[in-house]
Amino acid sequence: MNIGFIGLGNMGRPMALNLARAGHALTVFDMAPASVDALAQAGATPAASAVDVARVPGLELLLTMLPAAAQVRSVYLGEQGVLAAVAPGVLLLDCSTIDPMTAREVAQAAAARGNRMLDAPVSGGTGGAEAGTLTFMVGGAEADFAAARPVLAQMGRNIVHCGGAGNGQVAKVANNLLLGISMIGAAEAMALGVALGMDPQVLAGVINTSSGRCWSTDTYNPYPGVLPGAPASRGYSGGFGSDLMLKDLGLATEAARAVKLPVAMGALAQQLYQAFSRQGHGGLDFSAIIRSIEAKASA
Amino acid sequence: MNIGFIGLGNMGRPMALNLARAGHALTVFDMAPASVDALAQAGATPAASAVDVARVPGLELLLTMLPAAAQVRSVYLGEQGVLAAVAPGVLLLDCSTIDPMTAREVAQAAAARGNRMLDAPVSGGTGGAEAGTLTFMVGGAEADFAAARPVLAQMGRNIVHCGGAGNGQVAKVANNLLLGISMIGAAEAMALGVALGMDPQVLAGVINTSSGRCWSTDTYNPYPGVLPGAPASRGYSGGFGSDLMLKDLGLATEAARAVKLPVAMGALAQQLYQAFSRQGHGGLDFSAIIRSIEAKASA
Amino acid sequence: MNIGFIGLGNMGRPMALNLARAGHALTVFDMAPASVDALAQAGATPAASAVDVARVPGLELLLTMLPAAAQVRSVYLGEQGVLAAVAPGVLLLDCSTIDPMTAREVAQAAAARGNRMLDAPVSGGTGGAEAGTLTFMVGGAEADFAAARPVLAQMGRNIVHCGGAGNGQVAKVANNLLLGISMIGAAEAMALGVALGMDPQVLAGVINTSSGRCWSTDTYNPYPGVLPGAPASRGYSGGFGSDLMLKDLGLATEAARAVKLPVAMGALAQQLYQAFSRQGHGGLDFSAIIRSIEAKASA
Amino acid sequence: MNIGFIGLGNMGRPMALNLARAGHALTVFDMAPASVDALAQAGATPAASAVDVARVPGLELLLTMLPAAAQVRSVYLGEQGVLAAVAPGVLLLDCSTIDPMTAREVAQAAAARGNRMLDAPVSGGTGGAEAGTLTFMVGGAEADFAAARPVLAQMGRNIVHCGGAGNGQVAKVANNLLLGISMIGAAEAMALGVALGMDPQVLAGVINTSSGRCWSTDTYNPYPGVLPGAPASRGYSGGFGSDLMLKDLGLATEAARAVKLPVAMGALAQQLYQAFSRQGHGGLDFSAIIRSIEAKASA
Repeated sequence: MNIGFIGLGNMGRPMALNLARAGHALTVFDMAPASVDALAQAGATPAASAVDVARVPGLELLLTMLPAAAQVRSVYLGEQGVLAAVAPGVLLLDCSTIDPMTAREVAQAAAARGNRMLDAPVSGGTGGAEAGTLTFMVGGAEADFAAARPVLAQMGRNIVHCGGAGNGQVAKVANNLLLGISMIGAAEAMALGVALGMDPQVLAGVINTSSGRCWSTDTYNPYPGVLPGAPASRGYSGGFGSDLMLKDLGLATEAARAVKLPVAMGALAQQLYQAFSRQGHGGLDFSAIIRSIEAKASA
Repeated sequence: MNIGFIGLGNMGRPMALNLARAGHALTVFDMAPASVDALAQAGATPAASAVDVARVPGLELLLTMLPAAAQVRSVYLGEQGVLAAVAPGVLLLDCSTIDPMTAREVAQAAAARGNRMLDAPVSGGTGGAEAGTLTFMVGGAEADFAAARPVLAQMGRNIVHCGGAGNGQVAKVANNLLLGISMIGAAEAMALGVALGMDPQVLAGVINTSSGRCWSTDTYNPYPGVLPGAPASRGYSGGFGSDLMLKDLGLATEAARAVKLPVAMGALAQQLYQAFSRQGHGGLDFSAIIRSIEAKASA
Repeated sequence: MNIGFIGLGNMGRPMALNLARAGHALTVFDMAPASVDALAQAGATPAASAVDVARVPGLELLLTMLPAAAQVRSVYLGEQGVLAAVAPGVLLLDCSTIDPMTAREVAQAAAARGNRMLDAPVSGGTGGAEAGTLTFMVGGAEADFAAARPVLAQMGRNIVHCGGAGNGQVAKVANNLLLGISMIGAAEAMALGVALGMDPQVLAGVINTSSGRCWSTDTYNPYPGVLPGAPASRGYSGGFGSDLMLKDLGLATEAARAVKLPVAMGALAQQLYQAFSRQGHGGLDFSAIIRSIEAKASA
Repeated sequence: MNIGFIGLGNMGRPMALNLARAGHALTVFDMAPASVDALAQAGATPAASAVDVARVPGLELLLTMLPAAAQVRSVYLGEQGVLAAVAPGVLLLDCSTIDPMTAREVAQAAAARGNRMLDAPVSGGTGGAEAGTLTFMVGGAEADFAAARPVLAQMGRNIVHCGGAGNGQVAKVANNLLLGISMIGAAEAMALGVALGMDPQVLAGVINTSSGRCWSTDTYNPYPGVLPGAPASRGYSGGFGSDLMLKDLGLATEAARAVKLPVAMGALAQQLYQAFSRQGHGGLDFSAIIRSIEAKASA
């Protein structure tokens, strides 16, 4: 398939590499020349700009993986943007994590110019991107989802259609809102139980067979030593950074503001991560938030 | 076995009935004569007071199931209380849900008089009490736990030893702290996704295969219609009442205060349930809290 | 003085009328023709567009009073915007309430084209706009402040220089963040004292001579009947609407996010107003938030 | 006057000294012999126990100043307590800060034995106790208030009658709930304004002439250097300790729980102080909470 790929950062690079390995004809662009070089060595054709990717003759599918809404707007809607140059009929697929309102605005602009568009944010982190085991939450028309699915399956394992345009972003923002809340909840519960004298392993065992059970306790427990494979058991390195959770909680409260829905717990979670990040811990896995709860006076 | 049972309310009555059916010699007391009569018809011997239960000759095990710490203190530590009258060596088993500090204080007083004691709060509600499928979270010495286990197994299915005295209460309070937080988190996430245009079934499907997954989404989803068997799909009747969740969050924040641990999310959850209860919804299942999030102006 | 005025809404119209009455040569524009007509009858010259106001020959001062950052961006930075057309040297004065980041961005763009610019958000409401008793919080160069001051003094009473560009917005957002928090604090304190049996007048008297004293208790008490002149004593009509407080708390948490500062209380206040507004009370004075605290089951 | 005084801690000692200096016949007791000695040197008669104070022949007034509700219960209601021994007609006056429910329970028990009782918690700290400038918030009958007033005036400057029994505690708990909330609000507002580039003095000036004005900004500003006399300008030493604010917020949320009133902001404030105290800062003045907001990564 003739595919363009714009945005070769920590996530985009391994995703594009998986597509290159799968044998697609790939044209790529990134602001950082080194990232473009890495793909060129894997057989991709470098382009000099985003708009050059959009103009590739015979292009069938164009993917973007960008850091935030501002870049998505600029790459798609700018004067030298994709929509101004791409041929009608090319399927557009934005894998960035942004707010649903912007995703829908860009999808509408694409539709107005005769392009089909999907939003397909991912979860699974850089590890999932490298292993090709990402989850894609996809918003857009059923037929376009069907068309994109085989390509997505070369980068991920779990490909879910969430409904119309923007719904991929909605699904991700809702999931991560709950994730942020339940992680702090898990941290408060584990810290409280241990402070009151329980063994953390025993406590996790009780919770995981009871109504408090959640991904944050049974798969990613924030208490050190409970799960050998979890970031908590290796000093909170790797995993999903606190700064990324902070970003996603920002998207969630912003989206809630747009529809005037009160999300008191989500807003508080955002502020707790904001304090944690300000104190210099934004690079730690997000389960490290338990440290801000347990923190005591130094001796 | 020669068993005494004090406290025959909504939970205690069906628990005692299960013990009567299992063939134990049961002596019972409650402030409400009607509750005592119901057990007498099932073959139990009525007693005129708590202290009379404690004085039954040859008593081996004494269970209590009381509404709150004040009653536990009074029944065990009062001038006409159990500890002043019971023979040394009788195993005491308190199934009430109270704060861990009081549980430990009573257990120490029992030990000082030569009695062994376990705290064994339950989860599973009146349905579980009737069906004999409760979960018991048990704190106390290993040998005492082993001795009580066969009797507990006649009232419940999942019997967990949580460590020393008071740890049954610690496990319950920690679990329910997390449960209250994750239920509101689930409610915010479901309400936000739906407000932004997603189908609730599809959204629940995504969350339940992602990192937001929790008991409050996959087993007890608060959004009406997502899970046919959940209280949300029958007008939030039955289930675990909001007033009970409010009580447990009160125990959790109180316990956190005793060990000076910050539980910001738990404290906020408590206040949200306090508002909900004040508005007259304390009798609804606790998943009904989603109504306070979605509430709109009436037309 | 030769003055342009863009934005003649509930606030802008009475402000412009005060300038017209003071004898200035006024050219005005608004999207709503009726608003322009009202000013024309007071002697102002109507313009057909924002850019036409900017092009008035001999213009000395250009004021804008717009609803939000999006309109400020469009009016100043758009292709048909003020900056593209206005003569260098004209003093620009934006009285809109927007986030400090946007205010600084626009001020920088103005400076790049040789224009001086001040941000000067107001407080005092429509009543203050009509009576000419507004407070102006002004950010920008000292000399520009001195130049604008006489004109501002014709619309307001309290004109404060807050420092460099954007600082007018910073002062307003900080003040209103605290105002939103202390109003809910006052509501919780008054409601708690009354629920515990105190007379609201006596309670307010104690607080107002103690350390809880604040503008929200001594000047604008949210409890009905305590202050005869306050909105609480007339059904929460008039005053400063809950939806405006909600907007300002949104600006505050957004600004806090930009500098990564945790504002947990502010974020919670925002969510409480978001729930209140969603329930249909956004038009009530913001002290009506006490109703959401005291709300009980209807009989 | 023939006066008994029980509880000679940091607050009680200077209060009792002021009464001794005023020439009253004083009989005193405290658990700590050193405190009793200090009063004896000032002319007071030492007693061997609380009950001995209560039995002083001709006693007219008995004051207590105790750390918490548990001690108040024990001293008044215990088997060797005041009520079991004091003559009917002696006026009882408890200056401890405790929850209103306990205050009312003790007042009822006193009334049942023919004693009149007032609750009269203070504000003003140890400085006010020494200088005799405390504020007394008094609950109880009008006639008893009139009888106690002259003695209170020898220890304080502002003596306020707040209504019936317990209302002194209600007034204090309501005031300090608001104080804790508005102090954190002031800290968030000051920190936000400064982070966004404003001078703290200028910002405080704007707020203090605007609607954000409160005791926490105009008299006790938490930002260092704004008010030379405030604890913030001397490293947060002296003043009203964070641990005392934490205690009072605990009383407030407990009282709110008793009347089922939601106090979301108060509960969050309590948790923020709980974290601050856990981190070892409980001895700093409560305005130091601004440090937990501004805290950054150390270099």
